[in-house]
Amino acid sequence: MIPTPAGADAATVEDAPEQTPSAAARAAAEPAGTPTGPIPVVPDGSARLDVEAVSRALKGRWADSRDEARERAARPELHKPYDVSVAEHRARVLEQLHLLVADETSHKMLPEHLGGPNDNGGNVAAFEELVVADPSMQIKAGVQWGLFTAAIIQLGDEEQHHRWVPDAMSLQIPGAFAMTEIGHGSDVQSLATTATYDADTEEWVIHTPFRAAWKDYLGNAALHARAATVFARLITQGVDHGVHCFYVPIRDENGELLPGISSEDDGPKGGLNGIDNGRLAFDQVRVPRTNLLNRYGDVAPDGTYSSPIESPGRRFFTMLGTLVQGRVSLDGAANRATQLALHIAITYATQRRQFTAADPTREMVLLDYQSHLHRLMPKLAATYAGAFAHEQLLQAFDDVFSGRGDTPEAREDLETMAAALKPTSTRLALDTIQECREACGGAGFMAENQLVGLHQDLDVYATFEGDNTVLLQLVAKRLLSDYTSELKTIDRAGIGRFIAQRAEVLARRHTPWTRLAQDLSDLGSPKRAFDSMRSADFQEEMLASRARVKVEEVALSLRPAARMSPADAAAHVNKHQVEMLAAARAHAELVLWRAFTAGIEALEDEDSRTVLTDVRDLFGLDRINADLAWFLLNGLISAQRGRQITSDLRRLLWRLRPHALDLIAAFDVRPGHVRAPIALGGEQERQDEAAAYHRAQRASTSAPVSEKVLRERAKKEKQAARKRQGAGR
Amino acid sequence: MIPTPAGADAATVEDAPEQTPSAAARAAAEPAGTPTGPIPVVPDGSARLDVEAVSRALKGRWADSRDEARERAARPELHKPYDVSVAEHRARVLEQLHLLVADETSHKMLPEHLGGPNDNGGNVAAFEELVVADPSMQIKAGVQWGLFTAAIIQLGDEEQHHRWVPDAMSLQIPGAFAMTEIGHGSDVQSLATTATYDADTEEWVIHTPFRAAWKDYLGNAALHARAATVFARLITQGVDHGVHCFYVPIRDENGELLPGISSEDDGPKGGLNGIDNGRLAFDQVRVPRTNLLNRYGDVAPDGTYSSPIESPGRRFFTMLGTLVQGRVSLDGAANRATQLALHIAITYATQRRQFTAADPTREMVLLDYQSHLHRLMPKLAATYAGAFAHEQLLQAFDDVFSGRGDTPEAREDLETMAAALKPTSTRLALDTIQECREACGGAGFMAENQLVGLHQDLDVYATFEGDNTVLLQLVAKRLLSDYTSELKTIDRAGIGRFIAQRAEVLARRHTPWTRLAQDLSDLGSPKRAFDSMRSADFQEEMLASRARVKVEEVALSLRPAARMSPADAAAHVNKHQVEMLAAARAHAELVLWRAFTAGIEALEDEDSRTVLTDVRDLFGLDRINADLAWFLLNGLISAQRGRQITSDLRRLLWRLRPHALDLIAAFDVRPGHVRAPIALGGEQERQDEAAAYHRAQRASTSAPVSEKVLRERAKKEKQAARKRQGAGR
Repeated sequence: MIPTPAGADAATVEDAPEQTPSAAARAAAEPAGTPTGPIPVVPDGSARLDVEAVSRALKGRWADSRDEARERAARPELHKPYDVSVAEHRARVLEQLHLLVADETSHKMLPEHLGGPNDNGGNVAAFEELVVADPSMQIKAGVQWGLFTAAIIQLGDEEQHHRWVPDAMSLQIPGAFAMTEIGHGSDVQSLATTATYDADTEEWVIHTPFRAAWKDYLGNAALHARAATVFARLITQGVDHGVHCFYVPIRDENGELLPGISSEDDGPKGGLNGIDNGRLAFDQVRVPRTNLLNRYGDVAPDGTYSSPIESPGRRFFTMLGTLVQGRVSLDGAANRATQLALHIAITYATQRRQFTAADPTREMVLLDYQSHLHRLMPKLAATYAGAFAHEQLLQAFDDVFSGRGDTPEAREDLETMAAALKPTSTRLALDTIQECREACGGAGFMAENQLVGLHQDLDVYATFEGDNTVLLQLVAKRLLSDYTSELKTIDRAGIGRFIAQRAEVLARRHTPWTRLAQDLSDLGSPKRAFDSMRSADFQEEMLASRARVKVEEVALSLRPAARMSPADAAAHVNKHQVEMLAAARAHAELVLWRAFTAGIEALEDEDSRTVLTDVRDLFGLDRINADLAWFLLNGLISAQRGRQITSDLRRLLWRLRPHALDLIAAFDVRPGHVRAPIALGGEQERQDEAAAYHRAQRASTSAPVSEKVLRERAKKEKQAARKRQGAGR
Repeated sequence: MIPTPAGADAATVEDAPEQTPSAAARAAAEPAGTPTGPIPVVPDGSARLDVEAVSRALKGRWADSRDEARERAARPELHKPYDVSVAEHRARVLEQLHLLVADETSHKMLPEHLGGPNDNGGNVAAFEELVVADPSMQIKAGVQWGLFTAAIIQLGDEEQHHRWVPDAMSLQIPGAFAMTEIGHGSDVQSLATTATYDADTEEWVIHTPFRAAWKDYLGNAALHARAATVFARLITQGVDHGVHCFYVPIRDENGELLPGISSEDDGPKGGLNGIDNGRLAFDQVRVPRTNLLNRYGDVAPDGTYSSPIESPGRRFFTMLGTLVQGRVSLDGAANRATQLALHIAITYATQRRQFTAADPTREMVLLDYQSHLHRLMPKLAATYAGAFAHEQLLQAFDDVFSGRGDTPEAREDLETMAAALKPTSTRLALDTIQECREACGGAGFMAENQLVGLHQDLDVYATFEGDNTVLLQLVAKRLLSDYTSELKTIDRAGIGRFIAQRAEVLARRHTPWTRLAQDLSDLGSPKRAFDSMRSADFQEEMLASRARVKVEEVALSLRPAARMSPADAAAHVNKHQVEMLAAARAHAELVLWRAFTAGIEALEDEDSRTVLTDVRDLFGLDRINADLAWFLLNGLISAQRGRQITSDLRRLLWRLRPHALDLIAAFDVRPGHVRAPIALGGEQERQDEAAAYHRAQRASTSAPVSEKVLRERAKKEKQAARKRQGAGR
C-alpha cells in the first residue's frame, strides 16, 4: 500500500563507487522516447505502422472469409451470456448453431460433389474468428462440422456422404465425435471399444467392454447428438484390424436414447459450458455393415477385410490425419483470442492512471511503467509471430485438404507443424490472457471485461485435440527421425565432418572462442552490440543453432538405448523426455521467428516493415533471453552479449511504446468483439472527470488544504524565522 | 496422436561419436530408483518420511486450531456448489456464514475486553483452512470479520468496540469494507471520497465527488451489507487530514438503501461468485461525529483535529497496518489451496496410466514420466517452502497483533515479510493449480475435480489485498532503504571496503576466478559436484548473494537520480522497475529457502529430515536454475556447475519419486476436502477393471488376434521359409 515508486530513498546513495564505464556508455546510447510524462506519441519523422496494410497482412490469404466472419462475430445474438445456468447456456448455443446454419457458415468445407467450393482454408479461417463471440458456440460448431461431419467426409465414400452429410450440415442430425475414452485420450491407438462383424446379419456389433472404455468428454453427447462417429477396434473373422470409424445413431427424433446406448452428462466444466459434453457407452449395439466409414478399410458381406493401405500402422495414422484440422483451427482461434485479450489490456493500460511519478498533479498511465510494458509487449510480439506462423500453417492445411498438394510428405509436414504450433499458441493464449487479466487489476476479474471468461473457455485448449505434451513429443520424434535419417544417408567422409563438428561444439564449452569473437566485434560500442543483436542473421543463427544442437544432444544421449533391452531402453528414453520436449519447443520458436520474418519481408510499406522489425527483434531476443543460460553454457552467446541482452530488450520495449495502440489496431478487433467496458472508453471518461474535479479544486480558494502541505509550510517558515534570527545576531 | 515414447527411432543413431567422459561418469553415478516398470517404492533401508511428524510440523503452532478447522472444512454443507446462479451461490454462502457464527469460528480474534482470547494466530490459521470448503465462503467471512469487524477493533476505541463489534460478530449487521475506489485500489493514499466535519450539527458529511471515487469491488456491498467501514479523506476546519475510517450505516433492517447511499452490483466475476461484490457511493451522507473510528485521529465537537501520531504519513501507514492481516491469511490460504491441488494431481498421477513403454502389457503411470515429475515435483517443493515460511509469518503476525511484540520495527518487518510472501504464494498457487489441471488432462477440466474452480476463485488473490506488483515494489523499497541506511552508517574505512567489494564483483565478471575454483573443487567427480551443490551452504550463499547483489545493483543504478529534477528522477527510477521487482523476488525466495531449512532443522525425526532435505534441495536448485543466466553472468556459478545443475535436478526428481505420496499425505488433505472423483479411487478402480479384462483376453483362445501380430508372424514365417530354402540349396 505504500505508494511507488521506490526511487526517492534509493537516490540518496551517495557513497557508492562510480558507475562502470559500460553502464555509462549504455546510458549515453539510450534512445529517445523514454517517457517522462505525457503519453508517448510516435516521434515526428519516425516510421509508423500502416495499420490497414498490416491488418490485411495478418488476415492473410482468406481475408474475405475473415472479414465476413468478423462481422458475424460482432452480432449480439451470437455473444456469450453471463450468469446463466449450464442448461440455459447449452440451449442458447444450440440456437446459435441454427443461426450459423442459416448463414451457411460451414458450406465452404464441402467438396465439389456435395455442391461446395472445397475451400478448406476459408472455412477454417471463418471458424477461428468465432472465438471472440462465444468459444462455446465455436467449439460446438467445431464438434458438429469440424469433427462429426468432417469424419464422414474424410473417412466415408461418396455414397455415405450423400446419405449423412446433408443432415449433419443442416443440424437435422446433431452429432458427436466419439473417439476419446475415459481411459484413453491422446493415445488413440489404445482405444478399447469394439466393433465386431456379424456376417450372419451383416451387422456391426458396437460394444463397450469395461468402464474405462466409455467414450468421454464428447461435445453433443450429453443431450443433443442423434448420431455419433464412433471409433472402435474393427474385429472380423477373429482378427482385430485396429481402430476404425463407424456411423452410429444414438437418439431418436424425440431425443430418447436408442436401445443399448447409455449416456452420462459430464456436468459443469471449467469453461465452454455452452457445450453438452458427455459420455457414451454401447451395449452390443447393432448397425448395418455399410455404417463403417470405409475409405481406408472395409469388409465384404462375408466379413473379409480389405484396405487400400496395407500397413495397419500407416492406415491408422492416415485415418487420424483428419484430426489435424482441429489442431490447425485451435492454433488460429487461440491466436485470435490472444489478440482480443491484448486489445483489452493494452487499451486499458493507455487510459488507466495509477500513482503519481513525474507529474505531481497527474498520475501515470499503466503502460508507461516499465514493468507493465515488460508484462505485455513481449506477449504482443509473440502474438504477431503466432499470427504469421498460423497463416503458413493454414495454407499448408488448405493445400493438403483441398487435394491440390496431398502427398504423404506434405501431410507429415503439416502434422508436424500443427503439432508444433498448437501447443505453442494455446500456451501463449493462456499465459497472455492471465497476464492481461492481472494487468487490469480488480477490473480484470469482472466477467463483463471478458478476460476471465476467455481464460476459462480456452483452458481446455491445452489438453484437447491432442494434449500439448503429447504433441510436442510427436514433434521431437519427427525431429529425431529426420536427424537420424540424415545421418544415415551421409557418407563416411560426411560422418567424419559431423564428428569434427560435434567436437567443436564440445570444445566451445571449454574455450569460449565464440564469445571472444563476439566481444571483440562489439568492443567499446554497446550501440554496435545492440545493432548486431538486432540483426536477423544473429537471431536466426541463434534460434536455428539451438534447435539443431538440442536435437543432436538428445540423439546422442539416446544412443545407448539401441543396445538395451526394450524395458531398459524405454527407461533410458524417459530420462531424456524433458530434453526432447525442449528440443521441440526450440523448433517451434524457430518456425515462429521465420514466419514472422517472412511476413515482414512480404510487406510493401517500408515504415510498417521498420516497426514490425522491432517487434520481431523483441520476439527473437525475448526468446533467446528466456533460454539465455543454455546459450551461455553452449558457447553460442558471450558473457558480454549476455549481459547486454536484458538492457537491449528494455530499450526495444521503450522504442515500441509509442506504437502500442497501432500494433493493437492492426488486429482489427471490432466493437462487438470487445464488449469489456474497461476497453470501451469508460475508464478514460472517469479519468477525465476526476482530473477536471482536481483541477477545479486546485483553482479554488475554498478547497481544503492538506495537513501535509501545512506542516511543510510551517516547517519552512520556522526555518526562515531561525535564519532571520541568526542574521540579526 | 502418434504414441510416445520417441526413443525407438532415435536409438538407431549408430554413427555418432562417443559420449563425453563427464556424461558417462554422470550416468555411472546415477542413483538407484530410476523406474523401469512398477510403481517405485521407497527402497528398503532408505529414509522414509514420518508422515505424522511432518504433518504436525506443517500445522505449526496453531495445530489445534487447524485440526478443528479441517474438520469443519470437511462438512458438506460448507462446500462449494456447482452450476448454481450467482444469486443462488450468494444466498448459500450467506447461510454458511451463519453456520460459522453458530460455530463461533471467529471468536478467537476478539481482544480480552470483548470477551475473547486475543488469539490472532489461531484465528487466522482456522480461517485459512476454509479455502478447501468454498473460497467464496472463506473470503466473505474474511470481509465480515477480517476486514469490517477488524477495522472497528483496530481503528476504533473501546466504546466503539462495544457499540458495533457484537452485531458484526453475530452477523446481525453484515458489513462492507469500503476502501478501494474504482479509480484507486492499491494506491490508498489517493482515495477521493471525502468526510467533511460539520461543527454545527456535529456530523460528518460523507461524499463521493465523482464517478471514479465510487467504492468498488466491495464484498457484501451489492446486497447484504447494512453498514460499511468507509475510508475517506477527513476534512475539518478547511484542512484535509488524509484518509481515515468511518462507520457508516448503509441499509435498513429490510435491506433498503438509506438516503444518500447508492449501490451497484459488480455482477458475475471470474470466481468467488458466492460473494456479492458491489459499488457504493455517498451523496452528502451524514453520520454522527463519533462514527469516526478514532484510535489514530479524532475531532473534538468544535472540529479541532488531534492525533497521537504527528506525522500524517506515519499515521496513514499505521492505520493501514491492519490490512496486513488480509495478506497474511491469503498467504496461508493460497498455500493450503496449492496443497489441495497437488494432492489431487499427484494422487491421480500415481493411478492414471497412459502409453506403454517398458512393459508391453501394462501402461505407465503418469508420475513415472520424467516430464510429469518435472511439472509437479518442483512445485511440491515450493509448496513445502511456502508452508514453513507462512508459519514464520503467522507467528510474527501474532506477536504484533496480540500486542506482545508490537513495536514499529516489528510491524515494519511483518509488513515487508507479508508483502514478500503474499505475491510469491499466490503466484505459486495459480501456476500450480493450472499445471495440476493440465496434468490431469480432460479430467482436470471437469468442475467436479475441483482444480478449475480453485483457479477461478484464487485468480483474484494476485491483485486484491494489495496488487502483487505493488507489494513487491514495497519490498524493493524497503530493501533499498535498508541498504542505503546501512551505507550511511558505515565509516569511511567501511565505505572503502564496500567499494573494494563492488570492484571485486565487477571483476569477477571478467576473470571468472570463482568459476575456476568451483571447477577445481568438483574436478573429475560429478558425484562430488552433486553433493556440493546440495550442501545448504552452497544454496544459501547463492540465494543470499543474489538477493544482495540485485539490491546493490539497483541502488547503484539509481544513484544519478539524486541529482535529477523530480520528473527526470521518476523516469530514471521507472527504467529500473523490473530490476527492483527482481530484487524483491530474489529476497522472497531467500526467505522461503531459509524458512524451509529452519523447519527441517526443527524436526526430530532424522529420516524425515533426510527426505525433506532432498525436497529443500530441489527447491533451492530449481530456484537457482530458473535464474541460472544471472548466476553465470555474475560469476557466482561456473559453467561446469551450470551444466551440471540440470542433471542434478533430474536426479533429485527421481530420488523423490518414491516419496511423492508420503509428501502429499503430510499435507493432511482429508476426504471432504478432496471431492474430486479422480483423486478418490475411481481411476484406480477403472484401471484395475481394464487390466483384468486385458488379462482375460490374453488368456483366452477365442479373443481376436491383432492384424499387426498376424502380419509380423507371417513375415517371420516367410523369412524362416526363405532361410530353409537357402539352406536346402
